[in-house]
Amino acid sequence: MRIYADNAATTKMSQHAIRAMLPYLDEIYGNPSSLHTEGQRAAEALADARERIAKALGGTDREITFTSGGSEADNLAIFSAARLGEAKGHKHIISTAFEHHAVLHTLDALQKQGFSVTLLDVHENGLITPEQVEEALRPDTCLVTVMYANNEVGTIQPIARIGKLCRERGVLFHTDAVQAAGHLPIRVQEQNIDLLSLSAHKFHGPKGTGVLYARKGIPLSTMIHGGAQERGRRAGTENLPAIMGMAAALEDACAHMEENAAKTAAVRDRVIDGLSRIPHSVLNGARDPRLPGNVNFCFEGIEGEALLLLLDDRGIAASSGSACTSGSLDPSHVLLALGRPHEIAHGSLRLTLCEENTPEEADYLVRAVSEAVERLRSMSPVWRDLISGKKEFIL
Amino acid sequence: MRIYADNAATTKMSQHAIRAMLPYLDEIYGNPSSLHTEGQRAAEALADARERIAKALGGTDREITFTSGGSEADNLAIFSAARLGEAKGHKHIISTAFEHHAVLHTLDALQKQGFSVTLLDVHENGLITPEQVEEALRPDTCLVTVMYANNEVGTIQPIARIGKLCRERGVLFHTDAVQAAGHLPIRVQEQNIDLLSLSAHKFHGPKGTGVLYARKGIPLSTMIHGGAQERGRRAGTENLPAIMGMAAALEDACAHMEENAAKTAAVRDRVIDGLSRIPHSVLNGARDPRLPGNVNFCFEGIEGEALLLLLDDRGIAASSGSACTSGSLDPSHVLLALGRPHEIAHGSLRLTLCEENTPEEADYLVRAVSEAVERLRSMSPVWRDLISGKKEFIL
Repeated sequence: MRIYADNAATTKMSQHAIRAMLPYLDEIYGNPSSLHTEGQRAAEALADARERIAKALGGTDREITFTSGGSEADNLAIFSAARLGEAKGHKHIISTAFEHHAVLHTLDALQKQGFSVTLLDVHENGLITPEQVEEALRPDTCLVTVMYANNEVGTIQPIARIGKLCRERGVLFHTDAVQAAGHLPIRVQEQNIDLLSLSAHKFHGPKGTGVLYARKGIPLSTMIHGGAQERGRRAGTENLPAIMGMAAALEDACAHMEENAAKTAAVRDRVIDGLSRIPHSVLNGARDPRLPGNVNFCFEGIEGEALLLLLDDRGIAASSGSACTSGSLDPSHVLLALGRPHEIAHGSLRLTLCEENTPEEADYLVRAVSEAVERLRSMSPVWRDLISGKKEFIL
Repeated sequence: MRIYADNAATTKMSQHAIRAMLPYLDEIYGNPSSLHTEGQRAAEALADARERIAKALGGTDREITFTSGGSEADNLAIFSAARLGEAKGHKHIISTAFEHHAVLHTLDALQKQGFSVTLLDVHENGLITPEQVEEALRPDTCLVTVMYANNEVGTIQPIARIGKLCRERGVLFHTDAVQAAGHLPIRVQEQNIDLLSLSAHKFHGPKGTGVLYARKGIPLSTMIHGGAQERGRRAGTENLPAIMGMAAALEDACAHMEENAAKTAAVRDRVIDGLSRIPHSVLNGARDPRLPGNVNFCFEGIEGEALLLLLDDRGIAASSGSACTSGSLDPSHVLLALGRPHEIAHGSLRLTLCEENTPEEADYLVRAVSEAVERLRSMSPVWRDLISGKKEFIL
């Protein structure tokens, strides 16, 4: 038996999304830019997907740009806002210390181009406040970019209030909604979102496609030059099969959002309650507001990677943080941003669940993690020092 | 009945490629960056695809970067070479007037950044010569980028000789092989290619994925910032299903290249011979060396779009040029580069065949095009002026 508990890294495609995708591989395979029947059928499907995705987000079809995924959408949003700011001499950007690297590394690139970046501190509970944003705003601020939900600790940021503040101040607001889309409500109008990124493979859609929502009137700075696809904003033959799969997956996720969230959160809570009983452990990030599927714990005296390997042997696919950085030996920048000391941040475990996980699996996860932590501690010199009093417990 | 004769715009995925892709949607769906079994199975598949693609091109796996398609690969290649040149004060680039817009528009962007670009004139036969490149080389030339085969007229450029010349002069050589890959032999070593772009959906692979080959030691300038995927050169969760489909399609295309080319060229020649019998028509581009599937004609007194619509009604999917620009009313920049006057360039027809097209289809194509041309001419005031002698024939 395997329990897949790494849905924040990627999800299994739903049969619904696969069925929506398949006809576009070898049946309606035309290039949407072609004038003939095959092309026009493809163009109609593309227009239909664009409209359905716009509707799911509360926007209009002309505000949707298809990208190759969430990272490209984040890059395109941030570079575009930066170029607009630059034209007015506004070269200050506000973000947070625990964004995804697709945001942070794009900001690094902009800093090399003379932009100044304020990264807001994150409270230990994994949240930032609109007041923090307000304090950081400067006359030359051109962009505020704050993620909707954090990819490691699952905490949900008050983006509607941040959006409102930004709108009042005339500053563009981008949110990386890669972990939120399909799991939390998105209404770009009501939430005052100017730019929003999402990725299909985080909600049972296909890999290789994503969306940048950009409010009407916000010009994008082309990153991929070439053909006139996406109204000149993003060149390259549209990935129609993936886009059709994405549209189906997003609609499906939105249609069942409440029930899926309730089901997933019940399993999540069962896991959190169970793991909370492990001594010297701590849940990372506030319990609420939190993504329905996110569990993230630190266990003192534990090396995260060893824990993952033991769990993998027990049939559990888990992670210690973002998949994008799992090759790295550095502790998670997210946990450090939450104020966890290095030695604690190293011992983290992220379990990200979906509506297919069951209460029985929750119990198995709790049992397996508890046993693995106990076993690793029994072998750990650090743990020996802690229980003998040579070292002080942090947790 | 439909005859699809627009394979240069996009191809139908082969069942072989689809079969290679499907397991990665909902079975081996892990994120290749994840440490658990699901992730490692995905990572192994990714490594396997990379190695197979490298082998098909004559390169090594570390020289392969997966992109979202040909346009991104072209952009990444050219921007990377430009950044390397810039660092040495070498800001001159040589290309040709009939490149794809993914190249030309990237060069436009670089010109705005102070690069100087020489676009070589193309001979009426659709070819450029190594001597032209040699004459254009300057001490500050950092890149020569010449397409392997033209996407509209199918002429095959002497890239091995251009590559040799560039290597001798210490200038990077990039080739946009989007139309060539899977159809013409690629041996990056023997052909002295430093950078090469390809796109899977042009050889019966999936849309949404492509490759940039970059010779060992050539650092790429990241365009999409974020996670450490592709050894830090291109962020974003890898589009594994599409990559597996691409690897299978490329291997398949390479394994059957000679027989496919022979079969396709026989059908192509039948079409070219048939259409050559239409009065006041001309084949665009040399008959040889030419892509096995490419037919491109101009018919005097004809409006290309009207011809396409008539053919579409007769069940034929054709184009008048690149799909990427088919929304545009401008005549093809490729045909203009070949020296066709505006009024002739407007009346072009591109038929791009694959190994699935039959001699019977060739005969049908010839008949349908001949009849459509005759019908359109019978209604055309321009044609009336031509046959009455009021206007002179160009062709």
